[in-house]
Amino acid sequence: MRAAFYAGQKTIRVGECAPVAPLSGQVQIRVSHCGICGTDLHVYHGHMDHRVRVPQVIGHEMSGTIVQTGGGVQGFAAGDRVTVMPLDPCGGCPACRAGHGHVCQRLKFIGIDSPGALQTLWTVPAHTLHVLPVSLSLEHAALIEPIAVACHDVRLGEVKAGEYIVVLGGGPIGTLVALVAKAAGARVMVSELNPFRLRLVRELGLEAIDPRETDLVKLVTEQTGDAGADAVFEVSGSAAGAEMMTRLPRVRGRIVVVAVFPTPAQVDLHRFFWRELRLCGARVYQHQDFEQAIELASSRALPFERLITGVYSLDQLETGLLQMEKGGEVMKILVDCSGR
Amino acid sequence: MRAAFYAGQKTIRVGECAPVAPLSGQVQIRVSHCGICGTDLHVYHGHMDHRVRVPQVIGHEMSGTIVQTGGGVQGFAAGDRVTVMPLDPCGGCPACRAGHGHVCQRLKFIGIDSPGALQTLWTVPAHTLHVLPVSLSLEHAALIEPIAVACHDVRLGEVKAGEYIVVLGGGPIGTLVALVAKAAGARVMVSELNPFRLRLVRELGLEAIDPRETDLVKLVTEQTGDAGADAVFEVSGSAAGAEMMTRLPRVRGRIVVVAVFPTPAQVDLHRFFWRELRLCGARVYQHQDFEQAIELASSRALPFERLITGVYSLDQLETGLLQMEKGGEVMKILVDCSGR
Repeated sequence: MRAAFYAGQKTIRVGECAPVAPLSGQVQIRVSHCGICGTDLHVYHGHMDHRVRVPQVIGHEMSGTIVQTGGGVQGFAAGDRVTVMPLDPCGGCPACRAGHGHVCQRLKFIGIDSPGALQTLWTVPAHTLHVLPVSLSLEHAALIEPIAVACHDVRLGEVKAGEYIVVLGGGPIGTLVALVAKAAGARVMVSELNPFRLRLVRELGLEAIDPRETDLVKLVTEQTGDAGADAVFEVSGSAAGAEMMTRLPRVRGRIVVVAVFPTPAQVDLHRFFWRELRLCGARVYQHQDFEQAIELASSRALPFERLITGVYSLDQLETGLLQMEKGGEVMKILVDCSGR
Repeated sequence: MRAAFYAGQKTIRVGECAPVAPLSGQVQIRVSHCGICGTDLHVYHGHMDHRVRVPQVIGHEMSGTIVQTGGGVQGFAAGDRVTVMPLDPCGGCPACRAGHGHVCQRLKFIGIDSPGALQTLWTVPAHTLHVLPVSLSLEHAALIEPIAVACHDVRLGEVKAGEYIVVLGGGPIGTLVALVAKAAGARVMVSELNPFRLRLVRELGLEAIDPRETDLVKLVTEQTGDAGADAVFEVSGSAAGAEMMTRLPRVRGRIVVVAVFPTPAQVDLHRFFWRELRLCGARVYQHQDFEQAIELASSRALPFERLITGVYSLDQLETGLLQMEKGGEVMKILVDCSGR
């Protein structure tokens, strides 16, 4: 079997390796497709070297078919088409005991803290599995994980039908947040700078603007009858986004911080006071978000497959990472791990 | 009758003036006591000159007795002992229409945007009134307004019995927030720099530390079994408070921004993401908060009267303002407007 290893700053090695047999409570999966996440690019850039023990197989947005199950695994069998929720909580910390295992204080993220999916055969705990319906292709199912991120964000943002939502940042996650919010019945406005992504977001049936060309505060104020947005999703991770996110919500409106801010940002706390705004951070997902993502994807409620702008072989992983690094005409890149 | 006017930057004039007869829907109150709020000090310093039309009677933390009622006023009569919720919402903006009149988009705050309580006779809309129980002295009742602020903050912070709460800043509002949270059954830790206030807060039965002497993050982590605080109230308005507020909460913990931050602050948005923290701004109060404040004060559940560190006559208002400006051994200063 083959695997793609991150081997230290900006180095990917693809080569032969031995499969890991499933122990008790584990399953071995033949990986079909694996999406490249922004986090994988961070790992590639060496920004997560404090967490990643090299050489490490990365990747976590995947689909595949169970090859064999370890002892004590119930409800899953060889041949099942599955995707993986790549979280391995400790079970004992205060967050786990309070029922928030997805943000466990000692969370192991599979594909960062332990081996990931960019390999032929992947062995994971059975508690991570979600079965895929036959109506969903394995290629498309590699997007279930990022769709689950969006479902989690929209759920924590308490988006309701008829609400006016702004999404700051129209990359893969921002666009999926916008699509999931729209599926919930909201009117959604996306703010994005990249012309390719702006065009793609519009082709998906969403409203979108370039904030350098359109005064977003004025637009939202007008379109909401002087009220402001019901909720704003900050998915850009930029200083401009941190500034804009407080200017858009209505009185008692909500802000969801989805993006990773590597350093503290200037935030207008007076605006929180003045309008009694609310903010919440949203990280990864819970099982119910995976279930919703699978349902939305298989019901064809979202044109999510349009986000796939390239499919590469395992040997071409670095080409995909470099394309993401360059930006431009790129949204979601998949890696075909099947060796077909 | 006499009134105290703010007459431009750092100038108070106290003199004779004519009473304002109550129009339809209004009542005229003989003012007993009026507390000096941090906002009054801001006005005195000229920081709110963009809002205050001079000369203006200021003051809004008051108690008094109704002298006469205008036409159409029902449920109130001369002789009623009352306090005033000093908010005058427009009734027509999106926030008012959504039921959030207390943070109306065109809110007039009585005592800033229209004449305040630091005068012998004060005429206000009847919808602002709350009747005081006989068990509550008029001197003590001047603290109902700041207690209502604390009730609002604790309500929005969703404080529950048994929770661990941190209050950053032990001035009058921070101390009242701590007392109201304790009355709700929470364990409360106050962080304060001023030694006089620290001592007073401890005498009120609250736990309190000086963060220059005690490592607050370490203390909270230890006292919560490595979980973190359930909720943190930021009442300091300082850069240090904005930094500390994200370091203390547990996974899914809450932050309530009570303080006024005049400029944007550095905020660790990554911490919101990582622990799925929630933040809300809390401003002024709603009628239910006044009702709760009156109930708490009259039931003697809170030793709130201990916060009164001085009572001055109307002619001595500027002395009180200067004492607050100087800081040190001062908490809440009242002005006796009765001319006794």
